[in-house]
Amino acid sequence: MNAEILCVGTEILLGDIANTNAAYIAQGLARMGFGVYHHTVVGDNAERLKNCLSIAFGRCDLVFMTGGLGPTYDDLTKETVAAYFGRELKTDPECLRQLKESFARSGRPMTENNLKQADMPEGAIVLPNPFGTAPGCIVEDGGKAAILMPGPPREMIPMFDGPVQDYLSDKIDGVLVSRNINIYGIGESAVEQKLRPLIAHMKNPSVAPYAGRGELRLRVTARAENAEAALSLVEPVVRDIVAELGDYAYAIDAKNLEQEAVRLLAEQKLTLATAESCTGGLLSARLTDTPGASAVYLGGVVAYANQAKIELLGVSPATLEAHGAVSKETAAQMAEGAALRLGSDMALSTTGIAGPGGGSPDKPVGLVYVALHCRQTGTEVLELQLARGRQDDRENIRQAAASRALAMVIRHLRGGRPLIGA
Amino acid sequence: MNAEILCVGTEILLGDIANTNAAYIAQGLARMGFGVYHHTVVGDNAERLKNCLSIAFGRCDLVFMTGGLGPTYDDLTKETVAAYFGRELKTDPECLRQLKESFARSGRPMTENNLKQADMPEGAIVLPNPFGTAPGCIVEDGGKAAILMPGPPREMIPMFDGPVQDYLSDKIDGVLVSRNINIYGIGESAVEQKLRPLIAHMKNPSVAPYAGRGELRLRVTARAENAEAALSLVEPVVRDIVAELGDYAYAIDAKNLEQEAVRLLAEQKLTLATAESCTGGLLSARLTDTPGASAVYLGGVVAYANQAKIELLGVSPATLEAHGAVSKETAAQMAEGAALRLGSDMALSTTGIAGPGGGSPDKPVGLVYVALHCRQTGTEVLELQLARGRQDDRENIRQAAASRALAMVIRHLRGGRPLIGA
Repeated sequence: MNAEILCVGTEILLGDIANTNAAYIAQGLARMGFGVYHHTVVGDNAERLKNCLSIAFGRCDLVFMTGGLGPTYDDLTKETVAAYFGRELKTDPECLRQLKESFARSGRPMTENNLKQADMPEGAIVLPNPFGTAPGCIVEDGGKAAILMPGPPREMIPMFDGPVQDYLSDKIDGVLVSRNINIYGIGESAVEQKLRPLIAHMKNPSVAPYAGRGELRLRVTARAENAEAALSLVEPVVRDIVAELGDYAYAIDAKNLEQEAVRLLAEQKLTLATAESCTGGLLSARLTDTPGASAVYLGGVVAYANQAKIELLGVSPATLEAHGAVSKETAAQMAEGAALRLGSDMALSTTGIAGPGGGSPDKPVGLVYVALHCRQTGTEVLELQLARGRQDDRENIRQAAASRALAMVIRHLRGGRPLIGA
Repeated sequence: MNAEILCVGTEILLGDIANTNAAYIAQGLARMGFGVYHHTVVGDNAERLKNCLSIAFGRCDLVFMTGGLGPTYDDLTKETVAAYFGRELKTDPECLRQLKESFARSGRPMTENNLKQADMPEGAIVLPNPFGTAPGCIVEDGGKAAILMPGPPREMIPMFDGPVQDYLSDKIDGVLVSRNINIYGIGESAVEQKLRPLIAHMKNPSVAPYAGRGELRLRVTARAENAEAALSLVEPVVRDIVAELGDYAYAIDAKNLEQEAVRLLAEQKLTLATAESCTGGLLSARLTDTPGASAVYLGGVVAYANQAKIELLGVSPATLEAHGAVSKETAAQMAEGAALRLGSDMALSTTGIAGPGGGSPDKPVGLVYVALHCRQTGTEVLELQLARGRQDDRENIRQAAASRALAMVIRHLRGGRPLIGA
């Protein structure tokens, strides 16, 4: 069954707020298995709203609407929907009672135009609004239905999650199950090219890519009669994709690199410290953004100035003199110093040239060294060139260096174990 | 002249991301005086996209499109627009050259499907994309125009603000001049209430709020025959707003708190260090995100574990024992320790409970101490309660603590000097 989302409101139309309602409703509908092929935003204008309704019902059966249920003269969603379905608006006695109660409780005076909020299209299913004064409603006719919800998200969300989803549960077949494959170190188009023979024309399960901050997620979703049957469709595809991608696939159903690194550290009861130069705190900010990080992440040093590298990390002035701050040797000493000073099992360090200034022919912008020190296995240093010649390279280089450092920890801790059972 | 926004992308359609592109474009068009009556979102499907194009051009003259310019087979915006206008797609030699250069610079291999990104509808105006591999374009015919931009906001925004606005400037009368007032520490609705008498019904200049990461920007924009005339309309309004907002207005035309802090430090030739617990590197990551930070920011310590606070910052074990890690006393010693160890003129520290766990009746989630130590004037500590009872509180608390710390530096360095000449 197909659905559309039609949001009414000048604030969205003029860009004063982003249309988060559409995103929320779309996620819920996708999860339930409704096809959603269009979102539309229109202002509080009866003629244009009516045209949008006609276009939407010409393409689908369910139209989810938000906004325009307020008390003012430019709130006209109920009026327009009633007219579209050839219904009258009538005062709903139960809505009126609740409206009066709500005003009495709040002590605010109820004005004439507030009465309008108790009007409902004849025959509509009323959707109570415990978080505001505007109830929603559902108007059905000939297999089509308009679902009207209020505009403020704190009123819309509980209405959608409650009575609207109850209403929808009768209309769906089977269940949907998804698994996500987390991918790092390869671009979206290269992944697509690698996987095309495997997943082109695949319908159930479907495979969809989602690009995040320097990483990628493939979501494999199947629909079946029950969760077990859906999962048995999903799992072989996940296994094939992971086999095809090899080490680029770093986790199943992780949120991101930092969360997977924290999870593996916790699982193996190991602690981590950081020593950052070019990433300037980004690596530790990403680690500590993950709830539970405090159990495994002891802390770190942001050593921008050379003096900080010497004082706080014990980097030798001779090394800085001979090889420079951006060098394999300095990176190694930074990681070793962080592990020693913070008493951690492992430590990551970054040093490089994030730009836009500071590059030289010898050490160009984008040159980054990332080191991983492990108490048991010693220190490994990667030399990377992360510049992509773009104007926002500074941010890219910093993020890419932090991501690469996290990926080093993940690969080390996984130690070649397969992601998914054969 | 009327415009519509037509965003192409499965991620938006399925609700994985909110349509912030539409909001950004709508704001820009409203500011320039274009009428925008519809936004539409559609997936990567040629038939549906073509229908949406027909509907849009049936209602308006300019259709602003985002998304579907990537290298994969389901990116088909250019193909569909070309077909709609009866044009061929042809390889644009200049686009091809830039694409090859970009791949060469990055060292990534260029795959067959990347070549597609150099194809353009015949006769299109090409819009360069310095932030990605997908150029945009404008296709004009018979008074109608489709403006195609990439989907990622960090690529779309500079393209819209640059070449697209240049293109649009011919279609509007006069020139537009804007100034931005940067605001911190007061919410959007409180600002609106404070300023309503001043700016309600104001048309030229217009005043529009933009909410960022915990801060707010008011953009004052005037249209006039020339820049000088427009500026003379803008400036008195900026002055009135700054006077009304008092200390909440922290800068004019700054990018954000961190950039203003770095600018003021550089101006006054002072250096800064940080000592972070609950913000976990976020404060230093934000500081070092600003080009030029290395001249004033020496580095910092992320001291998550108590041992790190003692070893790296010299916090006294007795203080930690008596008052706890989350206390005024610890915050002060952290800032003082950071200044001492890093040899900086000033130092900021944060310690608090970001949650979701770790709270107690005494020290609930959201309790944060932020300290500013200055070599000359001593140490100031703020006690804050930053929880808002929402699911994303951890991230909010960390960001708000970092913002507050930056605001402390800015206020200290401004020392009461007015933002704008009388």
